[in-house]
Amino acid sequence: MDIVAGLLKGERRALAKAISLVENEDSRKRETLKQIYPYTGKGYIIGFTGAPGSGKSSLVDRVVKVMRQEGNSVGIIAVDPTSPFTGGAILGDRIRMQDHTEDKEVFIRSMGTRGSLGGLSRATRDTVQLMDAFGKDIIIIETVGVGQSEVDIVKNADTTIVVLTPAGGDSVQTIKAGIMEIADIFVINKSDLPNADRTRTELSVMLDLDERKKWRPPIVQTITLSDHGTREMWEEIKGHRAYLEKEGLLPGMRLERAKRDIQDHIEYIVKSRVWEQVTGTHMFEKALEKMHNKETDPYTAAKSILDRISLDNKD
Amino acid sequence: MDIVAGLLKGERRALAKAISLVENEDSRKRETLKQIYPYTGKGYIIGFTGAPGSGKSSLVDRVVKVMRQEGNSVGIIAVDPTSPFTGGAILGDRIRMQDHTEDKEVFIRSMGTRGSLGGLSRATRDTVQLMDAFGKDIIIIETVGVGQSEVDIVKNADTTIVVLTPAGGDSVQTIKAGIMEIADIFVINKSDLPNADRTRTELSVMLDLDERKKWRPPIVQTITLSDHGTREMWEEIKGHRAYLEKEGLLPGMRLERAKRDIQDHIEYIVKSRVWEQVTGTHMFEKALEKMHNKETDPYTAAKSILDRISLDNKD
Repeated sequence: MDIVAGLLKGERRALAKAISLVENEDSRKRETLKQIYPYTGKGYIIGFTGAPGSGKSSLVDRVVKVMRQEGNSVGIIAVDPTSPFTGGAILGDRIRMQDHTEDKEVFIRSMGTRGSLGGLSRATRDTVQLMDAFGKDIIIIETVGVGQSEVDIVKNADTTIVVLTPAGGDSVQTIKAGIMEIADIFVINKSDLPNADRTRTELSVMLDLDERKKWRPPIVQTITLSDHGTREMWEEIKGHRAYLEKEGLLPGMRLERAKRDIQDHIEYIVKSRVWEQVTGTHMFEKALEKMHNKETDPYTAAKSILDRISLDNKD
Repeated sequence: MDIVAGLLKGERRALAKAISLVENEDSRKRETLKQIYPYTGKGYIIGFTGAPGSGKSSLVDRVVKVMRQEGNSVGIIAVDPTSPFTGGAILGDRIRMQDHTEDKEVFIRSMGTRGSLGGLSRATRDTVQLMDAFGKDIIIIETVGVGQSEVDIVKNADTTIVVLTPAGGDSVQTIKAGIMEIADIFVINKSDLPNADRTRTELSVMLDLDERKKWRPPIVQTITLSDHGTREMWEEIKGHRAYLEKEGLLPGMRLERAKRDIQDHIEYIVKSRVWEQVTGTHMFEKALEKMHNKETDPYTAAKSILDRISLDNKD
């Protein structure tokens, strides 16, 4: 397959094509992912997440320059779960291309939701694998949002950075448990704004209360405009990586991820088998009519549809 | 079943118990939902969504008072997808109980994520049905967050209200397409803050650009502290409901929802059948070992597990 051969040889166009296959659920997607799989597992994956307007993209651009100075090749996946039509994502791409367009060792790809959040999470995971097999030393997943959607996306990362801003000091209070727990490093960006120190103190108090974790997330203050704190952030990322390696935690994390991958694939295959058999029949319409007449309920309707199809076809 | 009988008689304790069955995935959950299903379909469902700190809860409290004055019984489901341990949700409950604890016609329940976002979305949907069968005229789903998570939750609503604040005028720019599209009504809360009028203008311009929709979402400015705008918001909700009824759109919306319900149940049943058969075997461990040795990839591993179990068991 040309795409796979090209990708493994380090051709950027082949990588771009392979990502499109993944995004578009192309029929060649499976075979591509299968063939590149043996070449994965070398890249280090870093997740950046934070609310809209926290300045994640600029921060990523800054740290990528430092990573490049140290000789790392970098892949960036900018994920926007709030944008079903990749509108935001495309805009992001354009803004950033200015900075790294000349650098052949930086590969940027934006992704928005296409239909479902599950689909986006899968496409992100698959793109990480493609960039990994391509030979990127570092793969950055950058995602916007609060809540479960970003948690699902950054769980693919080895080191996760949560980006906050000192806005009014409210920010720390609005960080919920789910976000606190995924953070390996906290960054207070826009630290030239008022209340930056207060935000840091509040965050620090909050971290003191959390005794579950062996790793205490460091707090870094950054100002992207003046490039303040970028290098410190990079050092903290390397520090977290060194910690994971020293404690031997990486293999376990990657095993967990592999396990989740198999589970996702199982669910996806089974779902496809269901919809293949239901599509084109009137099973759904009949069930809906019965529900409308209150002759059945959604659960019983679901069961009776399942009784009439076979999920054991070996494809 | 006592719980069902009690719920249909309007006993608050029975409703509370039924919701707990749903939340805890109790074995009696299915039978309960099945039995109450014929009594659903009468309540009107309103969704409130907005970023953390936009003042949704206070706004809901205000409008509930007006609804009550007009003789409506109300159920409120406060959903927090950012809180895996219901920490935030419980806090919310306590604060609000002060306002409505004396009023037997207002039933409030908070929910946080328990494991998965899908689980939360399902629990919300089931709780809506329980409150509906219980006899609530209006059921309010209030959810925090930006992105797909809240979209999944409020898609159960007949009228959806997106709550913004005039913070710095940035707010409108950060509303992404996904959120724009779910809004039937926009509320600019905290309209005593600077830039409220600018936010309104920006939002209005944005709505002018969107020509896809037949319904143009009205914009309401509110100040919860002084109760400003509450009644206007309520009138707009009734206006949207009247529009849906006049255009005959409600049956179609509810059909779509019923369809989604069957799909969710099908997926859930199939998933359960898979995990029942895999649990306790070493299929996963073996697959992971082969993946680790790069002898197989996640997709092939998933398929080989599926080949060794049967999903056609009729339970």
